Amino acid sequence: MKQLEKLIERIIYRVNINLREHGLFDVEPYILEIVPISQLVKFYAFYGISSHHPLYFHFSNSNLAGSYFLGKCTVDNSVLYKSDIRGDELKLKGDFFHFEGAEIALDHDEKISVSDSFLIKTLVHNYSHDPENLEEFIIKNTASTSYANIHGAPVEGCFLGPFSTIDLTTLHDCVIGRFAYVQVGEMIHQWVEPGSILIKKTDEFDFSYHFTENVLNQYIRFETGKRPQGIFMDFVENRKEDFQEVFNVVHRKPQKAVPSGASISQYSVFKGKSRISENVLIAQRSYLENALLGKGSNAQENCYIINSKLDGFNVTAHGAKIINANLGLRVFVGFNSFLHGKPGCLLDIGKGSIIMPHTIIDLKEPVSIPSDYIVWGYVTNQADLEQHSMPLEKFSAIDGKVNLGSMNFNGSGYAFVKAFRDRIEHILEANGAFFDGSKHRGHAQKGQNIAYNIIQPYPMGANKGIYPTIDIVL
Amino acid sequence: MKQLEKLIERIIYRVNINLREHGLFDVEPYILEIVPISQLVKFYAFYGISSHHPLYFHFSNSNLAGSYFLGKCTVDNSVLYKSDIRGDELKLKGDFFHFEGAEIALDHDEKISVSDSFLIKTLVHNYSHDPENLEEFIIKNTASTSYANIHGAPVEGCFLGPFSTIDLTTLHDCVIGRFAYVQVGEMIHQWVEPGSILIKKTDEFDFSYHFTENVLNQYIRFETGKRPQGIFMDFVENRKEDFQEVFNVVHRKPQKAVPSGASISQYSVFKGKSRISENVLIAQRSYLENALLGKGSNAQENCYIINSKLDGFNVTAHGAKIINANLGLRVFVGFNSFLHGKPGCLLDIGKGSIIMPHTIIDLKEPVSIPSDYIVWGYVTNQADLEQHSMPLEKFSAIDGKVNLGSMNFNGSGYAFVKAFRDRIEHILEANGAFFDGSKHRGHAQKGQNIAYNIIQPYPMGANKGIYPTIDIVL
Repeated sequence: MKQLEKLIERIIYRVNINLREHGLFDVEPYILEIVPISQLVKFYAFYGISSHHPLYFHFSNSNLAGSYFLGKCTVDNSVLYKSDIRGDELKLKGDFFHFEGAEIALDHDEKISVSDSFLIKTLVHNYSHDPENLEEFIIKNTASTSYANIHGAPVEGCFLGPFSTIDLTTLHDCVIGRFAYVQVGEMIHQWVEPGSILIKKTDEFDFSYHFTENVLNQYIRFETGKRPQGIFMDFVENRKEDFQEVFNVVHRKPQKAVPSGASISQYSVFKGKSRISENVLIAQRSYLENALLGKGSNAQENCYIINSKLDGFNVTAHGAKIINANLGLRVFVGFNSFLHGKPGCLLDIGKGSIIMPHTIIDLKEPVSIPSDYIVWGYVTNQADLEQHSMPLEKFSAIDGKVNLGSMNFNGSGYAFVKAFRDRIEHILEANGAFFDGSKHRGHAQKGQNIAYNIIQPYPMGANKGIYPTIDIVL
Repeated sequence: MKQLEKLIERIIYRVNINLREHGLFDVEPYILEIVPISQLVKFYAFYGISSHHPLYFHFSNSNLAGSYFLGKCTVDNSVLYKSDIRGDELKLKGDFFHFEGAEIALDHDEKISVSDSFLIKTLVHNYSHDPENLEEFIIKNTASTSYANIHGAPVEGCFLGPFSTIDLTTLHDCVIGRFAYVQVGEMIHQWVEPGSILIKKTDEFDFSYHFTENVLNQYIRFETGKRPQGIFMDFVENRKEDFQEVFNVVHRKPQKAVPSGASISQYSVFKGKSRISENVLIAQRSYLENALLGKGSNAQENCYIINSKLDGFNVTAHGAKIINANLGLRVFVGFNSFLHGKPGCLLDIGKGSIIMPHTIIDLKEPVSIPSDYIVWGYVTNQADLEQHSMPLEKFSAIDGKVNLGSMNFNGSGYAFVKAFRDRIEHILEANGAFFDGSKHRGHAQKGQNIAYNIIQPYPMGANKGIYPTIDIVL
């Protein structure tokens, strides 16, 4: 395992150099404990072969344990543990990228390029929203920890805490605290405090919310020299055994008939009385137990839907969790949100409502959210909604500054709500929610025919845990 | 599937052009029926990653359904269906190849190179014995059918019938009939009749045996436009379901404790009251049911050992079948031999005996073969042994011509027996039968730590069934 140890040491040096201006910050004690090195030799990596995406994979001098790849991608000198790298929305040669009125044509197909990085249970998806690097979605000199999301967000020289999300943002030399959400376009040399929710569009709007340290510590703690702890970690750890069988089988038939236009990833858990309708996408590493998903819904990577009913055209984004809840039509649940009803204490969400990314709704009494509301922050009872939600219509009418509890907003509420709504529409479309048998094909339909190649590391010797160099092209 | 259909057509043209002087011989009606094209998209290929063999794989424009690869290998423009390509005895850079007193050093590691060929359930193993091509074991413009063995035998422009074996022989533009065995050094532009057993070493010996058409047809028939038929095919077809689970699991733990120095391939069937001792090798696609294997024995690819006891240091070569039999120490059973006792009708073979490749012993009464005998041809009762066996000592004493039944021998019996004995010793050694805990390591020990990569074809579209181009290196 000498090579693998050297590799990890090398990545730590590189990340630390990038982060040197943040004083004495050292990523080593954070990342070394998350995954014992013996785990890195236990799992295989897999990549999807499909006729829907241009094929190009290249791996060298890397450990890819348990990771999933789809689409054009290169990985060099990196450790990726149980990470999902989904390149099925990358830009293609000849596409136009629109940025502030300009239209820029792509020279060649975009690819995701991971180098000198350490990604643990990280989701990487979408395409680079960096107008300066159209053909490459770069992840470099970066350490990213459990259940972080890197979504359309090129990163260089960064450290991402557990359950953090960077979304449509280019990041240089930043530290992103645990459970922080950042969607700000570009960010350089900053330290984002844990539990900060930052959404900003220059000249249009600026939204922020901060979880209190007290609340945050219940859900997710991360101390040097220890693995992440708290309710979020307990929740996923308690369900990880269900995935074991899933990953030990080469071809797995769906346990139930899959409705027309729908697909259930063979690498998902689908148990209890779960049932889905047409055009539903169940992505890999998603978890359904007694879940009813109406037409056109999608359950994205690392999401959990348990004892819940979703009426249709619902988006359950990467890492979101929905337990003991009823969701109306077109309810959107953002990244890593934790919606936790209890058997005697259900959560009801009316149609068209938006649960913002990184929202925690953990019930002490039954809670009902009306239709067409937007919700953020921390909610445990009906009264909490006062300071953590607003009718979408009212939010749209904001023009200027609004403070509500720990939420601060400045700018055009209309532009903010429209940005969310446009995005939800795009997600439904991209996932094939509107497929009519011939037109509007999306991931749900394209995902029906993916073959998975399984690649393994050297099983022993100095290279133990290192994957042989592999190139795959059409 | 258009690409795959084109590929098969292209291979057929190439083989037929090589075989054009054999009159109207056309391989198409033979090979098209063996495997329906729909089967070629159903299985994955797998290659072993181990620190014991130099790693280099390259595949392009090929279908590899169900095939197994180990060691340095390239495959281009070929269809390989459930074939085993075992490159763990290839020559290495700096090795010396000995040929007729000369010592030739190798420029670089040898690799197996398969191109423009169609190999169905074919075993390829060992290294090229062609003194003209030391660094490359070439299989080109060749169609090889069910359970044929290509063993250290480079082939160009050939057709190999089902259950045929070419062994340590370079072959150009030949047709090898079903169940024929050829070990003659080099063969050019010949048509070998079905059921011919030919073993020849220039200036030393010349052995031949021919099965009658009548006997052969019971065991293996092969008509144009039909799949191979007969007792051999029924035997393997009846057991193929046992392999289904084996190939659907990524990591499979041995069901029983594996003795020290031994290995059981995760891609073998090991059922009933089977038990093995130290330093035993159970290769992939071998089948054990109520089989007891003593120390240092090996069960090679596609072999079956059922309701039988093998005392130790036994070689069961590729494709050999042993049912209801007791074998003494160091009994050797050659390629594709069929030793078929019945519950009331056991076969006993005394220690040190050699069952030649392609021998059929199919009992109508109990048969006992003494120690240190050599056996060939077709045996159904004790009396048949008269014309189909001889004490090894007596055979060694032959100097000149001997005819016995359908067996013809000319030359030095001593050289013939010595060649067999040397080879058996080499096989035991290479397989690790003599491993003492530190020295004499062989396949049984090296096979304990192989990781299997699983590669899949395009699941749909014009490229359906074609595998993406893959390169793997250290």
